[in-house]
Amino acid sequence: MSLLVVGSIALDTVKTPVEEHGDLLGGSASYAASAASYFSPVQLVGVVGSDFPQAEFDFWRSRKIDSAGVQRVEGKTFRWSGEYAWDLNTRETHTMDLWIETTRADLDALLPHVDLLILNDSEAREMTKETSLIKAGRGIRKMGPRYVAIKKGEHGALLFGENEFFSCGAYPLEDIHDPTGAGDTFAGGMAGYLAGNVKKVTFTDLRKAMIYGSVLASFCVEAFSLERLRNLTMDEINERYETFKLMSQFEVPET
Amino acid sequence: MSLLVVGSIALDTVKTPVEEHGDLLGGSASYAASAASYFSPVQLVGVVGSDFPQAEFDFWRSRKIDSAGVQRVEGKTFRWSGEYAWDLNTRETHTMDLWIETTRADLDALLPHVDLLILNDSEAREMTKETSLIKAGRGIRKMGPRYVAIKKGEHGALLFGENEFFSCGAYPLEDIHDPTGAGDTFAGGMAGYLAGNVKKVTFTDLRKAMIYGSVLASFCVEAFSLERLRNLTMDEINERYETFKLMSQFEVPET
Repeated sequence: MSLLVVGSIALDTVKTPVEEHGDLLGGSASYAASAASYFSPVQLVGVVGSDFPQAEFDFWRSRKIDSAGVQRVEGKTFRWSGEYAWDLNTRETHTMDLWIETTRADLDALLPHVDLLILNDSEAREMTKETSLIKAGRGIRKMGPRYVAIKKGEHGALLFGENEFFSCGAYPLEDIHDPTGAGDTFAGGMAGYLAGNVKKVTFTDLRKAMIYGSVLASFCVEAFSLERLRNLTMDEINERYETFKLMSQFEVPET
Repeated sequence: MSLLVVGSIALDTVKTPVEEHGDLLGGSASYAASAASYFSPVQLVGVVGSDFPQAEFDFWRSRKIDSAGVQRVEGKTFRWSGEYAWDLNTRETHTMDLWIETTRADLDALLPHVDLLILNDSEAREMTKETSLIKAGRGIRKMGPRYVAIKKGEHGALLFGENEFFSCGAYPLEDIHDPTGAGDTFAGGMAGYLAGNVKKVTFTDLRKAMIYGSVLASFCVEAFSLERLRNLTMDEINERYETFKLMSQFEVPET
């Protein structure tokens, strides 16, 4: 099954305590599509301006991402900029995420039609006014989605089903160069794995999809922009999956 | 093997956004000894004042905690007070933990003799001046301890060996009533499990010990003070261990 990714395609300026880069390929759809492309065919839908580099269309082609739905219009490509604090986990976003507040009625109407809602911890708290992410996750499920995944940045992710629960750490990294797009990469990897590998989704498939999402996100933050997602191999992905599994297992036979 | 627990025994005043209680049994040694007592005999060493309730000595006896090393002296028992922010994870400690700064030379001399050092995330960052906990954990290992466990509060814990690594989430709880003592309970449960169940420690044993520590800590925070640790059963502990394992497993056969 192919995956349809609709969202922002941007040129980013990112500043961390040690580096600053501009005009990087960014936007949630760019990250999600790149991550998903390792598991399934992807159709990308978005808008770019006349200043958007043609080379990125070539990149999408190389990753078998169908960019027929990417419209080029007169004017500038959407620009996003972000600045990270010393711990690389607190972000000052220079644009705002207001979708929960400003279009709540539309959101509420949509939720019962959603199979899997992926959102981050602050969004989950905002939606439910709960501080406990466990309460938040269960509360959002009751608003309609069959499954809810809450991303916790460097602390991993939580997955809620009707009677099921999965807690997934983040793959441990010594050096994080740029956390931009990690959440979108996680979502893209998760959706891509499901689209490419699963016919009828079970909770076990969702666990595995969440782990692949985490693995892709761990590669993403190892370099600026989505550089690391341009030339990853399935062997690298699968090797990290196995290492990650071993690191998270409660009971492992001694070797 | 019995476990020797040396540390503070206190009467606590704890304030959360919804509750405040005073004169609660507290102190790191009280929590650690109570948690460890579910797995191994415990010898408790500490000092209390003339105002310390005799009933707590009876409690220790009931949990087979040998309190012969608890000295009662004239004057008041050590008082600790803490106040928690809305998320119950940020604490304003009204006493200070300065051991890393003020006695660093002694600490450095001790570390090579330590088998397992358990400390929290901010202490690990303070000791190494690293923001990455992965770097911090590996760095501390190089200072001497054979194994290092870093507690991350509601985000779980990390375990570092020479070539081994384990990432453990926190058991998910909807309601946390009082996080006081969770870290000491974790350490006591971990050390108690090792003392009571293991002859020659392997990394697999340490994983299991860390999980039991997390399980005990999850019970601890369900009630104020160490109320929940007074009357826990091994069946409750083992049941939660199994649930926790299932929630954390990467690959589970569908039932």
